[in-house]
Amino acid sequence: MNEKQLAAEKSIEFIKDGMIVGLGTGSTVFFLVNKLAESVKQGLNITCVSTSNQTSELAKSLGIKILNLNDVDQIDLTIDGADEVDKNLNGIKGGGGALLYEKIVANASQKVIWIVDSSKFVEKLGRFPLPVEIISFGSKQLFNRFDELGFRPQIRKNGSNNFITDSGNLIVDLHLNEIDDAIILERQIKLMHGVVEVGLFNNIADTVIVGKEKSTEIFSRK
Amino acid sequence: MNEKQLAAEKSIEFIKDGMIVGLGTGSTVFFLVNKLAESVKQGLNITCVSTSNQTSELAKSLGIKILNLNDVDQIDLTIDGADEVDKNLNGIKGGGGALLYEKIVANASQKVIWIVDSSKFVEKLGRFPLPVEIISFGSKQLFNRFDELGFRPQIRKNGSNNFITDSGNLIVDLHLNEIDDAIILERQIKLMHGVVEVGLFNNIADTVIVGKEKSTEIFSRK
Repeated sequence: MNEKQLAAEKSIEFIKDGMIVGLGTGSTVFFLVNKLAESVKQGLNITCVSTSNQTSELAKSLGIKILNLNDVDQIDLTIDGADEVDKNLNGIKGGGGALLYEKIVANASQKVIWIVDSSKFVEKLGRFPLPVEIISFGSKQLFNRFDELGFRPQIRKNGSNNFITDSGNLIVDLHLNEIDDAIILERQIKLMHGVVEVGLFNNIADTVIVGKEKSTEIFSRK
Repeated sequence: MNEKQLAAEKSIEFIKDGMIVGLGTGSTVFFLVNKLAESVKQGLNITCVSTSNQTSELAKSLGIKILNLNDVDQIDLTIDGADEVDKNLNGIKGGGGALLYEKIVANASQKVIWIVDSSKFVEKLGRFPLPVEIISFGSKQLFNRFDELGFRPQIRKNGSNNFITDSGNLIVDLHLNEIDDAIILERQIKLMHGVVEVGLFNNIADTVIVGKEKSTEIFSRK
């Protein structure tokens, strides 16, 4: 079993009968959804809310009940991946392009668990390019502003076309290399006009499960 | 001539040959676009960028050249309406639902002029409901959060359906009645997850032209 799968399967222990569960997006969540489908077949009674069309389709095809976020009051527990996590349990997400819905779902959740392989656990955030979801209208001016700020922006592509999010927006990846203060940077970027959401997830994860070689390590926010 | 038309026609004096001009949205801008079309027919050479499908269609039908914002580097002058303006030239916009594009265009402009009738010039902002553009996904949770904050939110309707912006999002109107600190409120709302843009336009207008009875008054930022 690889590290992603180890972390994903460990996280299922946190899911209790009757819960409303938020499901993230990405390759680690893929293992979660598959394992969860087995538990559901064996009688686990849960309702899920998804953070992407991709996860919704997979979950539904495996017999997991998916509701719209607007059809629930709140979510008991969300389990999601992350592209980088630091020792304060702050992280970068959005490598898969679903950062906006992932943040909204996390924000509506009582508890948030991230599942990652050991390569994602870093001393300092920023090596992974920081995804920012932006409005297409005026994206040229915003791109130039990121460039002036030294953020080394790159519009995400899908083949020769621009990558389009589930909300119809663009993703710009910022090649920062090192983030000194994730809290300040998140505010600075989110306040820019045309920015819909930033892939910095600060003070959101309560618990991080890290797959490491043949077992898992669990970190919880103090 | 009514006050809107007086303000609109006065603003044309600020447009110089060769300029890239941003055009706002709404009933006062309607007078501007019509008058501008006359000047263009008489030989005024300008290129325009529009803040809404509504304005684009009107301008094109009258022979005004419209470019996409992403096809220009910056805008020389934007002329737009406003729903409320205070003596600091801060304002509320978005009654027509175009606040996002209006703010992006204003932000890309060297100079911004607002044209209003005298009823829009107020002692304190907030009597006009504050429009906020929000992502549909998770709008229920965001609505509840606005409600808890005492903002008296209302999802904008278009007949029996939700009003949908040019970017495919919802508008929630906040019935605040009085805004104590427009700067703090704009930041507070823009930082909320699921918020795309807020209809508070602070430190954006350089000049406000107010139609008053049979003439105009011009206010400029110090």
